[in-house]
Amino acid sequence: MITLWELQGQGGRRYSMFSWRTRMALKHKRLDFTTQPVCLSDKAVIAFSGGKTVPILRDGETVVRDSWKIAEHLEERYRQAPTLFGGDIGHGVSQAFNVWADRALLPAMLAVIAADIHERVDPADKEYFRSSIEKALKKSLEQSRADRDEALRRLGRTLEPMQALLKRQPYVCGLAPAYADYILFSVLQWARVMSPHEVLGPEDPLCAWRERLLDLFDGFARNVPTA
Amino acid sequence: MITLWELQGQGGRRYSMFSWRTRMALKHKRLDFTTQPVCLSDKAVIAFSGGKTVPILRDGETVVRDSWKIAEHLEERYRQAPTLFGGDIGHGVSQAFNVWADRALLPAMLAVIAADIHERVDPADKEYFRSSIEKALKKSLEQSRADRDEALRRLGRTLEPMQALLKRQPYVCGLAPAYADYILFSVLQWARVMSPHEVLGPEDPLCAWRERLLDLFDGFARNVPTA
Repeated sequence: MITLWELQGQGGRRYSMFSWRTRMALKHKRLDFTTQPVCLSDKAVIAFSGGKTVPILRDGETVVRDSWKIAEHLEERYRQAPTLFGGDIGHGVSQAFNVWADRALLPAMLAVIAADIHERVDPADKEYFRSSIEKALKKSLEQSRADRDEALRRLGRTLEPMQALLKRQPYVCGLAPAYADYILFSVLQWARVMSPHEVLGPEDPLCAWRERLLDLFDGFARNVPTA
Repeated sequence: MITLWELQGQGGRRYSMFSWRTRMALKHKRLDFTTQPVCLSDKAVIAFSGGKTVPILRDGETVVRDSWKIAEHLEERYRQAPTLFGGDIGHGVSQAFNVWADRALLPAMLAVIAADIHERVDPADKEYFRSSIEKALKKSLEQSRADRDEALRRLGRTLEPMQALLKRQPYVCGLAPAYADYILFSVLQWARVMSPHEVLGPEDPLCAWRERLLDLFDGFARNVPTA
């Protein structure tokens, strides 16, 4: 029995990019799970986990926080299911990719979609989101919207190596998707769920790749509430 | 019988970052090889390869160009030797890392060390190097030297995810080095061989990691002509 605690926005949107990494990893491992919505501003319901952040996975008696640690847990416990990392080297380089995504790609995407996210978080989270994100961006949400074109250019520069990569191979992980694909996908799915604006150009090789990811697991990531 | 054609600078320096990827991959595979120096401006000696760039590997009857293709060739032909990629997923994500290194990290490092490289290339290559690099940088080498501090800050931002990564695990590939480590190392070795200036701060986690890479294979990469 697996339960995933994750952020929920307006209209039932599940928007956390970290949660999307876990969701795709669970489907990749062919595991059934249920989800529990959490507000950004309500830490009490997740106090049992010993931490203040989601996603949190409860798998039987085991509680795991942090999407990366959850992926490691799933890979370790469900060895017979399809692999997320493909062994030690794949695990190591996937963590390199994960850290790059969190520290280079995430801020670049956040700068593009922050104001759109704010409009779609749970009403109870609006103040909390505004103050924490304005601190991170070092500008108001209104200013971030005004600076959107510049932020989109920065996002394009950050994604450029991935555009080049996906001209050479169909997935980040090679011929078939695995965890590093879900890492990259999670950032685009975050935008898809929370922003009405397309962040990719029509010719971007990432578009066709994203469609392939949306098709996985019977359209699991496609058929969700979006902006 | 394996031969590697690679760029040579003044004082016998072997400075091509792409060649360093191949050198480390050959050592990783426990293969003996000899090298043939090539000037940037002398394409005639490598016409046999069908291309205009080094590194080129001749392995028996097989000729392979491009460091990534060479790594794939070594992994495929020498399956019993230590693995560079650790399987399909490691191969795929290592290519993602390779493309990121070439398209994000390489330009950031070039902006820091271009003028230093120019001073140390073969005299026959100086004009060729200046014109091609000034085109790439969109500024003169003299201006690039004047802008070095700004370029160092950009390099630091680009390397920041790798600094964070190497606080979590000892190598890019996890607990032991493999090809993705050699990719990152190659960019720092390029600087080490061609620039008298340290590009890393003393507290940078990349310093200790680089020392570990320099220790590999009996100090193979340490004991070479440097700036």
